[in-house]
Amino acid sequence: MSKYPVNETALLLVDPLNEFLSEGGKLWEMTKGTAETAGTIANLKKLTDACRHAGIQVVYALHHAGTGDDYDNWKFLNPAQQAIKDNQVFIKGSFGAEVHPDVTPQVGDLIAQEHWTSSGFANTDLDLLLKQHGIQRVVIAGNRANTCIDSTGRYAVELGYHATLISDAIAAFSEAEMEATININWPAFGHAVLTTDQFLKQI
Amino acid sequence: MSKYPVNETALLLVDPLNEFLSEGGKLWEMTKGTAETAGTIANLKKLTDACRHAGIQVVYALHHAGTGDDYDNWKFLNPAQQAIKDNQVFIKGSFGAEVHPDVTPQVGDLIAQEHWTSSGFANTDLDLLLKQHGIQRVVIAGNRANTCIDSTGRYAVELGYHATLISDAIAAFSEAEMEATININWPAFGHAVLTTDQFLKQI
Amino acid sequence: MSKYPVNETALLLVDPLNEFLSEGGKLWEMTKGTAETAGTIANLKKLTDACRHAGIQVVYALHHAGTGDDYDNWKFLNPAQQAIKDNQVFIKGSFGAEVHPDVTPQVGDLIAQEHWTSSGFANTDLDLLLKQHGIQRVVIAGNRANTCIDSTGRYAVELGYHATLISDAIAAFSEAEMEATININWPAFGHAVLTTDQFLKQI
Amino acid sequence: MSKYPVNETALLLVDPLNEFLSEGGKLWEMTKGTAETAGTIANLKKLTDACRHAGIQVVYALHHAGTGDDYDNWKFLNPAQQAIKDNQVFIKGSFGAEVHPDVTPQVGDLIAQEHWTSSGFANTDLDLLLKQHGIQRVVIAGNRANTCIDSTGRYAVELGYHATLISDAIAAFSEAEMEATININWPAFGHAVLTTDQFLKQI
Repeated sequence: MSKYPVNETALLLVDPLNEFLSEGGKLWEMTKGTAETAGTIANLKKLTDACRHAGIQVVYALHHAGTGDDYDNWKFLNPAQQAIKDNQVFIKGSFGAEVHPDVTPQVGDLIAQEHWTSSGFANTDLDLLLKQHGIQRVVIAGNRANTCIDSTGRYAVELGYHATLISDAIAAFSEAEMEATININWPAFGHAVLTTDQFLKQI
Repeated sequence: MSKYPVNETALLLVDPLNEFLSEGGKLWEMTKGTAETAGTIANLKKLTDACRHAGIQVVYALHHAGTGDDYDNWKFLNPAQQAIKDNQVFIKGSFGAEVHPDVTPQVGDLIAQEHWTSSGFANTDLDLLLKQHGIQRVVIAGNRANTCIDSTGRYAVELGYHATLISDAIAAFSEAEMEATININWPAFGHAVLTTDQFLKQI
Repeated sequence: MSKYPVNETALLLVDPLNEFLSEGGKLWEMTKGTAETAGTIANLKKLTDACRHAGIQVVYALHHAGTGDDYDNWKFLNPAQQAIKDNQVFIKGSFGAEVHPDVTPQVGDLIAQEHWTSSGFANTDLDLLLKQHGIQRVVIAGNRANTCIDSTGRYAVELGYHATLISDAIAAFSEAEMEATININWPAFGHAVLTTDQFLKQI
Repeated sequence: MSKYPVNETALLLVDPLNEFLSEGGKLWEMTKGTAETAGTIANLKKLTDACRHAGIQVVYALHHAGTGDDYDNWKFLNPAQQAIKDNQVFIKGSFGAEVHPDVTPQVGDLIAQEHWTSSGFANTDLDLLLKQHGIQRVVIAGNRANTCIDSTGRYAVELGYHATLISDAIAAFSEAEMEATININWPAFGHAVLTTDQFLKQI
């Protein structure tokens, strides 16, 4: 029996945004290196297409797309939030805040509320949406490895989900960040680390 | 003005347990290397004593101490939980599940409910206890760097707290794990990484 | 000293929507009776204007405005969600899903993510927004007394906030619902029940 | 098909404590009236025995049993917490803090972390335990109707569970409180209100 029953598994795409993944995105120069080495964009497309074909629920967890001044009166900004504010990243309606065209949401996908920080689960309706659709296993891909991907995986585990990382469908700002997520952290807290092909053989 | 006002700062000691930190603890052989290099035990004591002296609230976030069969019917065990089950780690009433004698809880400290997985906040009353005591900044030390320390820090940030890591008062199973937490991840999601001495100069 | 310090108090307006409060709103015939008896609309305006004038943060917790088919594949709909689905209530872009014109959001207000069920805190970023703005006391008004108002108050208390109900700035579908919230439940779990005038005298 | 499949349903006993239900309990004089009218104790026993017999998971959500001074430095006590403090209710190790002898926990039951306020889910591991055991439907009984029972039910719904109230296996401090929970609130937010016998016919 597959470890990933179709009706209780979701592909969770975390921040597959132009800002990270497209020429012209504000963070592309920083993610380009790891994305090209891993084949991230092609793998995200392959993974998403195959999951749709198999009937696995596709779920988007997207970063807050703001107006540029949303963080103005916050008590504590972390470095990522400070950089978003300083560089006007993920601005609502901008090219960068849109999902990469190769993995555009389709009818039937679920789109969770946008997250303010790193975890797709924190301060959003992601857990509720997954529960209401009977999802017990999440397969996670997207950006950025050691922030949103890692945090979303940690929350998934704390919430009782089975959590799989797709190691070649993520990107980061350095190979050291990729390494930290793929080889050091996820194997310690998560349930599986698989490449796109390894995962697709199991569904 | 100090960045760490006494009445809104807490020292959060995560799993400062014999299992990790004492000769005879079941994980000591694995943490010994990083702990001895960093001076973790001495720093934990120095840090805790100084915080008590300064009037900073000391809070304990301790791992679930079980009976050995608590995980028996769980759907999904992560590698840490599987290892705990297989090796009977953190058994209730055992030496290993006790706090290291150098940082024993004292009257006036807060002890949160025990956590099942990695984050001291997940599925416990830690956030409530901190809020009810007016805490807005947490200073985190203990074990294991890339699991409980990292997860507790990530949750703190998502919950709106200012999160500081004390880089020489933690331990892990390898220097690569220490590096991942101290130099790669916390600087990306947290608010400060300080040594014990650097922190104590600011209070 | 006021029990409601300006910089740590928020007025939390829960679902002050046309659907409940305006002629033509789909639920207006059901809330009209209690709203007219209590003077809800006038009190909501008086309260909101006075809080703005005093510098108290105004925060909106609004019900999910959907497309009519958002609940289609959910496992469990509660009666309120079933009624929303059946009667196409709170449809995105419709008159009913807009805030009542007397308490329109203004620049500087906070608008939390929309809630799917009853509590403004559940599955949203409301707690994070309040924490990031230093809020420790919430003053709650809006609709519907025994569902969203009551649930939001209960969550506030569990999360460590001081929770005040404004008893004449809420509405419900019957006087029995008003009574259950104002005289039976809130006095058991919340911190204060005040009329608009009683509250305004304290700020 | 039963609406309550054995392997995804749990009986959730909230605060079935001597303090509420036994002669000599500190709150017994207050709950006695409604408990005797409803037959609460006999129904709790009947319900629990039948669930065990049917193989339905029994789960306990118990109030924090304290040392009498746990709330000493809290910022905000609600009326229930103030009363607990003033009257030394639910003192750890006392008769009152024990489960009523007719529904004593047995091997195989789950006991969630104790709750500080009203909801068995808030600041505890209850959601995690339920998820890890595949539970999707909770059947709730115990005390006190309009505080812990109502709040636990509201949280269950927000978390995505199907929530059933057993209307004659709860107690409160007045018939008005019973009425508010059974006839006014639960029908608005929950999924079912059944008597013990009505529920037992469905399993």
